Amino acid sequence: MVEKRTPMQVKDAVAAVLQHAGSLASEKVPLEDSYGRILAEPLTATSAVPPFDRSPYDGYAIRSADSAGASGTSRVTFRVIDHIGAGEVSHKRLNAFEAIRIMTGAQLPEGADAVVMFEQTVEEGDTFTLRKPFEKLENVSLQGEDVAKDEVVIESGNVINPGTIALLATFGYSQPTVAKLPTVGILSTGTELLGVEDALEPGKIRNSNGPMIMAQLKRMGIACKMYGMSIDNLEESYQAVKKAAQETDCLITTGGVSVGDFDFLPAIYERLGAKVLFNKVAMRPGSVTTVAVADGRFLFGLSGNPSACFTGFELFVRPALLQMMGAQKPFVPHTTALLAEDFEKANPFTRFIRAVYDGEEVRPAGFNKSNAVSSIARGNALIVLPGGSRGFQKGDRVDVLLLGVEEGAAKWMN
Amino acid sequence: MVEKRTPMQVKDAVAAVLQHAGSLASEKVPLEDSYGRILAEPLTATSAVPPFDRSPYDGYAIRSADSAGASGTSRVTFRVIDHIGAGEVSHKRLNAFEAIRIMTGAQLPEGADAVVMFEQTVEEGDTFTLRKPFEKLENVSLQGEDVAKDEVVIESGNVINPGTIALLATFGYSQPTVAKLPTVGILSTGTELLGVEDALEPGKIRNSNGPMIMAQLKRMGIACKMYGMSIDNLEESYQAVKKAAQETDCLITTGGVSVGDFDFLPAIYERLGAKVLFNKVAMRPGSVTTVAVADGRFLFGLSGNPSACFTGFELFVRPALLQMMGAQKPFVPHTTALLAEDFEKANPFTRFIRAVYDGEEVRPAGFNKSNAVSSIARGNALIVLPGGSRGFQKGDRVDVLLLGVEEGAAKWMN
Repeated sequence: MVEKRTPMQVKDAVAAVLQHAGSLASEKVPLEDSYGRILAEPLTATSAVPPFDRSPYDGYAIRSADSAGASGTSRVTFRVIDHIGAGEVSHKRLNAFEAIRIMTGAQLPEGADAVVMFEQTVEEGDTFTLRKPFEKLENVSLQGEDVAKDEVVIESGNVINPGTIALLATFGYSQPTVAKLPTVGILSTGTELLGVEDALEPGKIRNSNGPMIMAQLKRMGIACKMYGMSIDNLEESYQAVKKAAQETDCLITTGGVSVGDFDFLPAIYERLGAKVLFNKVAMRPGSVTTVAVADGRFLFGLSGNPSACFTGFELFVRPALLQMMGAQKPFVPHTTALLAEDFEKANPFTRFIRAVYDGEEVRPAGFNKSNAVSSIARGNALIVLPGGSRGFQKGDRVDVLLLGVEEGAAKWMN
Repeated sequence: MVEKRTPMQVKDAVAAVLQHAGSLASEKVPLEDSYGRILAEPLTATSAVPPFDRSPYDGYAIRSADSAGASGTSRVTFRVIDHIGAGEVSHKRLNAFEAIRIMTGAQLPEGADAVVMFEQTVEEGDTFTLRKPFEKLENVSLQGEDVAKDEVVIESGNVINPGTIALLATFGYSQPTVAKLPTVGILSTGTELLGVEDALEPGKIRNSNGPMIMAQLKRMGIACKMYGMSIDNLEESYQAVKKAAQETDCLITTGGVSVGDFDFLPAIYERLGAKVLFNKVAMRPGSVTTVAVADGRFLFGLSGNPSACFTGFELFVRPALLQMMGAQKPFVPHTTALLAEDFEKANPFTRFIRAVYDGEEVRPAGFNKSNAVSSIARGNALIVLPGGSRGFQKGDRVDVLLLGVEEGAAKWMN
């Protein structure tokens, strides 16, 4: 007798997972190790940016009023009384028709309210002339024009990207506070599994899901514990899962969630007293994907089929881990694109098809069954085709999940 | 007298850089360390995938011919003679109206040519009945249907993504051959620069470009040598740059490339005998970006302005490093999107505006001058507005460089 399972819609399944994602603690890390981590407190400006009125160009600081009436036929002459490099401060104050030579980024001297670029002058000895009037604050970068002191520049929950690093450095945060990384374990089930270094044997295949998930976690900046491969025996599997679940915030298993004679995970979840959020999702591949929660810890039961496993990770594990870290953007990035070829086969379940997205069009990346491996590597996106009775045609605008687009483009822009 | 420089178009400047990017050697690394590296040899299938005909479902392997004529009123009965779990091989051969219970992923037994799912049977003791005929090879995953033995599955020059890891594991590559990582140095110039831990002083700012570039490199999986900050003195700067250039494949400097009195890099390039590929690019920000080559090594002279520095890195340094590693996709990923607001100001140079891309629209990320820092952190893309006399309107379709989209999305798909 086969157990009947009621499929949950993908969107509802994702929401169910997020509802159960608790919060991890925070920690301080050195700035140079903080790239890719998630800010656990707001990034507040400890000073204005710029911290003082400064020159955006190499040129001369002047009093704008002195340039009034300047023209090609009536040039105004200024006398240069000082010279400031970036990082230096002039101790002189400008009087009428005086100027101070100033470099990009240097603080404007007392009395000056405009900057003349070198290209706008004719220099002669320690004087120069101008042929046009300058407005008050022309060519001046004003204190605080980018960021005001005490402003919250980046909210908590944002990923620390290279720009965030620049801001943290600007404000002197040498030890920013970030969300702790979750402790994640991977346990691959299946007596058919060999290690990567093993020679093939009849009926067996090498474990590809474990290393793949390790890389999916690494893409998120998260390390993991590998629990190796468990054998398909209920008691031993139960003990292995129980131990791994106790040692992690989130245990990912592959295989063992279907209705086969050695699919022990449903029984294990029951023995653990885990709450099963769903054990069937209206999606292909990966309809058997199961997510359970025990003692506040996640148990992700991904399919043993590589494509299904890959998709299950990105749809459910990724947002759960990001939410645990307090991320403001827990979902897989997505866009829409034009389908580059027909996809006639109708399916009641939402399909996720590994695909190549080129910035405009999206095309299936090849052999497309749940047990496919090659297309996972060849693609940089997943086409999303909602479940329903009709197929899809070339030129239809479809949803696309972006997973690998960051690798780069083969061509420059048109 | 200000030196006149002739601006090069961005596209030509990128091409000039790529022309000078040599090839790095390759090395073997453990599979678990290979994520994000670039394949330095084609990934060839050491076996077929699947390696044998196998069952994609939990059910019964049968001879399809035996099911001929089966119907709801004339059910055909099969006798179960063996039971195979995944990884096991049956040593029995099917005779007429015999079946073998088989689990997902298990090798098809001798004589079988179709698989019946549990849901399609009515079981009773060691027999079951069917109500429909099965075709030859129905519900069978054929040996090699995903990948044929000896097939080149992924070409050299591709980034090793999680799917590639799955393939490498499948084929037993525990030590894949990847391109060596370039040795990259960062040297920030400018007497106005303080360290991240320093207290602010009049006229000075903390060095944000160095840490930012370090993070931009880290996003590419590349570590760097920090050469600290050089003072604005020609001789000392020359010695510092010379030493750093000798120790690296690629030296990135920030600042010192403009026409200021302490902008020594043009003179240093000359003393080093470096070939300057360009020292002016028709772009905002970053028009002073300079790229030179000395002894086959790159010298990237990025602007000291944070936005310009960030953009210069992504436009020029990134593709150069990727090309050195033999990458097939050296360019920044790009797409097009609808401009979410007017951008009236005309400019003869191509503008790169740090922006927020939501999958459909793109909107400037805030304060937008070359010395801006905040918008770098707030954005996940760069809007590209080609140089020309006109402005751009809300709704115009514009080119977008994707730099940070991988962080995630705040919302699920519509």
